[in-house]
Amino acid sequence: MLKDEVRTISYRNSIYQNQHLFKDKIVLDVGCGTGILCMFAAKAGAKRVIGVDMSNIIDQAKVIVKANGFNEDKILLVKGKMEEVVLPVDKVDIIISEWMGYALLYESMLNTVLYARDRYLTKGGLIFPDKATMYLATIEDGEYKDQKINFWDNVYGFDMSHIKSLALREPLVDTVNANAVNSTPCGFRSIDLYTVTVADLTFSVPFKMIATRDDYVHAFICYFDCLFTACHKPVKLPTGPQDTYTHWKQTVFYLTDVLAVKAGESISGTFSLAPNSSNSRDLDITISYKFNGQLTNLEATHKYKMC
Amino acid sequence: MLKDEVRTISYRNSIYQNQHLFKDKIVLDVGCGTGILCMFAAKAGAKRVIGVDMSNIIDQAKVIVKANGFNEDKILLVKGKMEEVVLPVDKVDIIISEWMGYALLYESMLNTVLYARDRYLTKGGLIFPDKATMYLATIEDGEYKDQKINFWDNVYGFDMSHIKSLALREPLVDTVNANAVNSTPCGFRSIDLYTVTVADLTFSVPFKMIATRDDYVHAFICYFDCLFTACHKPVKLPTGPQDTYTHWKQTVFYLTDVLAVKAGESISGTFSLAPNSSNSRDLDITISYKFNGQLTNLEATHKYKMC
Repeated sequence: MLKDEVRTISYRNSIYQNQHLFKDKIVLDVGCGTGILCMFAAKAGAKRVIGVDMSNIIDQAKVIVKANGFNEDKILLVKGKMEEVVLPVDKVDIIISEWMGYALLYESMLNTVLYARDRYLTKGGLIFPDKATMYLATIEDGEYKDQKINFWDNVYGFDMSHIKSLALREPLVDTVNANAVNSTPCGFRSIDLYTVTVADLTFSVPFKMIATRDDYVHAFICYFDCLFTACHKPVKLPTGPQDTYTHWKQTVFYLTDVLAVKAGESISGTFSLAPNSSNSRDLDITISYKFNGQLTNLEATHKYKMC
Repeated sequence: MLKDEVRTISYRNSIYQNQHLFKDKIVLDVGCGTGILCMFAAKAGAKRVIGVDMSNIIDQAKVIVKANGFNEDKILLVKGKMEEVVLPVDKVDIIISEWMGYALLYESMLNTVLYARDRYLTKGGLIFPDKATMYLATIEDGEYKDQKINFWDNVYGFDMSHIKSLALREPLVDTVNANAVNSTPCGFRSIDLYTVTVADLTFSVPFKMIATRDDYVHAFICYFDCLFTACHKPVKLPTGPQDTYTHWKQTVFYLTDVLAVKAGESISGTFSLAPNSSNSRDLDITISYKFNGQLTNLEATHKYKMC
């Protein structure tokens, strides 16, 4: 994960370039992993950094922070669930966390960050990053759709279209070529980490995209960016198809139909997202859209499950 | 997995090209997945095919075989563990199975196939495939080793060499360029599915490779091929770096040292493999080697864990 340079450098810049914010502060790293963000914060002048992680990786982090000359007074690593651990401080000045999942919210640690915020963040304290926006756009993707979806129509002579219907319900995390995008992006959901609540993470919001060329639409894609707005100069961590590769790639939602769009035509609809009721780690996503184009006229609702 | 063409076509050829072997036979597919091999066997003339799988995928397979016109008398799909299910037959004529894991034996289903063989295969019955051979070779891989292993020496200014020592113990499943191979391959272990026992899957065997050019050796690689020798013309499923891509790729075992080898020099040693004592799904692999070259003189033992 550290090998995702865009990500690590965004965090590093937001911390190193803003030492005035970290100097003598108490910092909490939610889901600290190998401890890299803890070390960034310590090196930026934090008085004390506390990293919490329930994964065994924190055992390695303990060896690493020691090897880099930080004692427990400077960087304290605590193994356990954020909701259960006992920390030696009652309040922290800054929360840092790399909590984002695919399509921002799939297998994300945001709920844990919000718990830490409500329990530990001092009034006026800072969150790194503190803003996230989810985007939707349309893409031309005929070749891939044939390979990944229509493939099931005829598998070595057998009809596996039953699998096709399941495949259509499963969003695909993959790298999308920027040239495949054929609409304006629509920032359909923004999250302010200072104020968002867990309840806000179940939502149904409108979107609207404008076709940028005469083309076919095979799928919607979802991606996000995060902002560190507390920085002297805000740092952005973008994950769109036009941006440098990150391990988040983009998330592709294939449509059953193909839309023939003409430049300037608009596709509008509603994007709904909720944790699955039987397994809250899974996400239920519904995309309803309406398209009254010159060549295609369609209203449809697609249900997807990220699992 | 069906999208791995080399694999599926090897099975298809071994079945379709040998309909004389399948005609009117009772066939058992161990770990049948989507049911593709069951349908190959049924179409090749089998009297009855029984597919067993403990995964939920078999629920989809049931829909698929029905959609393709096979009733339960022709293809019966049974959900459960091979060791626990009750089948409507006491013996079968042919066992087919796609059981192979990375480096052949990691997360393989071979134990289950051997159980099915001992319990269900009639005397003189056939197994598809019936032979597997594991190969070892050396590779030049300086650039990747820097990216994947030496990376940890300096991670954004911090010493994470502790992770490096862990990374060195973890074999890497990856596609190896055929040009990187700089030794003869050594087929160090062959398995005959008719006679092999579970106990035989813990072993320690010698190997010897000859350097094919003046070069550096950064790693050993392991791969395998499978043979369907019952076929009129034996069918081979190869997974080496010189062969067409399969999802098994190759398995790379990085060395701590770099060996400077000259063409014709030999590297010999012992390859030992055993299921991990605390988690039998994990594999403990030890490679001991001796190299008395003109430029490098070294004896070393490396312990790896596939998990």
